[in-house]
Amino acid sequence: MPSAFPVLERHLFGPGPSNPYPEATAGLGLPLLGHLDPEFLRIMDETCSLLRTAWGTSNARTLPLSATGSAGMEAAFVNTVTDGDVAVIAVNGLFGERMCDVAARCGAEVVRVDHEWGAPIDPERVAQAHPNPKVIAAVHAETSTGVRSDIEALGQLKGDALLITDAVTSIGGIELRADDWGIDVGYAGTQKCLGVAPGLAPFTINDRAFERRITTPRSWYLDLGLLGGYVGTGGGGGRTYHHTAPVAMVVSLHAGLNRVLDEGLEQVWARHAEAGQQLQDGLQEMGLELFAQEGWRLPELTTVKVPDGVDSAAVRALLLERHNIEISGGAGAYAATVWRIGLMGHNARPDAALLMLAALKDVLARV
Amino acid sequence: MPSAFPVLERHLFGPGPSNPYPEATAGLGLPLLGHLDPEFLRIMDETCSLLRTAWGTSNARTLPLSATGSAGMEAAFVNTVTDGDVAVIAVNGLFGERMCDVAARCGAEVVRVDHEWGAPIDPERVAQAHPNPKVIAAVHAETSTGVRSDIEALGQLKGDALLITDAVTSIGGIELRADDWGIDVGYAGTQKCLGVAPGLAPFTINDRAFERRITTPRSWYLDLGLLGGYVGTGGGGGRTYHHTAPVAMVVSLHAGLNRVLDEGLEQVWARHAEAGQQLQDGLQEMGLELFAQEGWRLPELTTVKVPDGVDSAAVRALLLERHNIEISGGAGAYAATVWRIGLMGHNARPDAALLMLAALKDVLARV
Repeated sequence: MPSAFPVLERHLFGPGPSNPYPEATAGLGLPLLGHLDPEFLRIMDETCSLLRTAWGTSNARTLPLSATGSAGMEAAFVNTVTDGDVAVIAVNGLFGERMCDVAARCGAEVVRVDHEWGAPIDPERVAQAHPNPKVIAAVHAETSTGVRSDIEALGQLKGDALLITDAVTSIGGIELRADDWGIDVGYAGTQKCLGVAPGLAPFTINDRAFERRITTPRSWYLDLGLLGGYVGTGGGGGRTYHHTAPVAMVVSLHAGLNRVLDEGLEQVWARHAEAGQQLQDGLQEMGLELFAQEGWRLPELTTVKVPDGVDSAAVRALLLERHNIEISGGAGAYAATVWRIGLMGHNARPDAALLMLAALKDVLARV
Repeated sequence: MPSAFPVLERHLFGPGPSNPYPEATAGLGLPLLGHLDPEFLRIMDETCSLLRTAWGTSNARTLPLSATGSAGMEAAFVNTVTDGDVAVIAVNGLFGERMCDVAARCGAEVVRVDHEWGAPIDPERVAQAHPNPKVIAAVHAETSTGVRSDIEALGQLKGDALLITDAVTSIGGIELRADDWGIDVGYAGTQKCLGVAPGLAPFTINDRAFERRITTPRSWYLDLGLLGGYVGTGGGGGRTYHHTAPVAMVVSLHAGLNRVLDEGLEQVWARHAEAGQQLQDGLQEMGLELFAQEGWRLPELTTVKVPDGVDSAAVRALLLERHNIEISGGAGAYAATVWRIGLMGHNARPDAALLMLAALKDVLARV
């Protein structure tokens, strides 16, 4: 069994993970602390506080779940719906699809509102899909299509329902205001615009949703009633042991969030907007056609149509081999006809956009 | 919001996490790879193969789940039991207790077989607790009490039931032979004797259990039917996207496992045995009394009674403050009357045992 492997330095310009901020990488390598060490508890408290800023929320129950973003989705549903509850789910890509699967496994009666892939959700149609759902769920930034949807408008129309929002690819990259927009439950990932390695799911739930939660959810690991004690927001002031926190990942997230918030959230959003615009302009100047609907394109994740006669996989392989650049194919039915190019987090920079454009030109001339 | 924090170097001599092997820490800090990068897929394949050796199994479905050890427990039950299935669970400590909670949430009819804390399970009593259970579950090394149980004997008595085993604190520290002992489903953690930071749950399931699994479990995130495709053992030879692997943690586990297996599993077990014996002898020479029943004491995790009149918390605080040494109180009813001292993974060394004994002597003279 060979134990050595080459150390590759990739430009991670796909839909995530992105290259972490150097501070986040340095955080991973620090001497490990115990999960109950007073110093670690302080770092965890600060991390939850920093996450509140990133979410735009004052929710006490804001924390990094100890698993990846997909577990955040599961936590959102398993804590809010059970057998027979109605869940209206907006579907305009892969992650909306996945929500339907996850909610159904929790026992929910899923009312699925389909949209064309590449288009945003229609908040009115979603809000009118059922007279009295327990939850309404939508994806803010669809990683599969590169499309933003208007969560604020959906929040205004949600009525009595709880609004669940997938912010995996939006947090730290584009405007996100959980409280102002009426998001009751939100989940995200660390490995996109927050610029931290994958492994945690930033999560937030407000009092309104917490009070209506399933008190003994099917999942022990993701039970928010128990997890409040774990991060010291369960009331009573104390901490209760739940599971061993993934200490190194939390310390890394703490470092990454500090980097982002030291720069300033609005400045970081502007940097993503600028890099994305530069990339999208450049791609169109090369004669390529963008996939996501104009006006709803994510700056942090660009979808572009593979030109006729070009072998998508060959281009991706040559980008990787020749330039150490990773981009991704499309999702689902668009696997071979769309590329997904992300400039997220630390990669939302003019030099990264230039390199991406130049490398794609180079490779398209060779295949 | 202060972004700087002091870098503390702790001796992690509690029940986990332990100080990682330096190779595992170095793995965390390597440039990040994409989760679908061919190089990462190779590292993932090797990691699964190395885990097979650590488990003592040839199970194809052996992988690191993308969450901590407690999620491994949840994965074991949510994939094997559903409403009305009988689960016989041996309880001789906190983690047996937790199994009952987790199994009940999956809908199982739990038949709980209680034992005294500090004693091993009685395989005959467990096996006779129900005529026809779907699963029988037990903890190999109880982290709450420092006790080993005889899983091999339970495996011989399990009959038609599936045997679920918690190996969180045994894997990489003491003899563990999943296939020879008849373990059908096993889960573990990375942060104890494997000497890697917390964040992943090494998991294994054999064909017999996989064939009898719940085909659409309540959990999407932990659905072993979907996870087989994620690590390329789902049959058909391909990989299917499930979730974004926690890349840095997997690379770190790969490095830690290589360190352990380069030394040799039996040598590593012997090193744990020696360090634990040295510690336990030294504690008894100091006049302290061990908690776990003689003959069943874990070398990697020692439980010792707090002497009458000594303030357990004051001793732990002074160890941390004066010597940067973390140990833990007892679990449950023994919180204030037992200490838990771990010499696990990289810490299973004579110098660590000496330091621990000397520091405890020093602190006991001061409180």
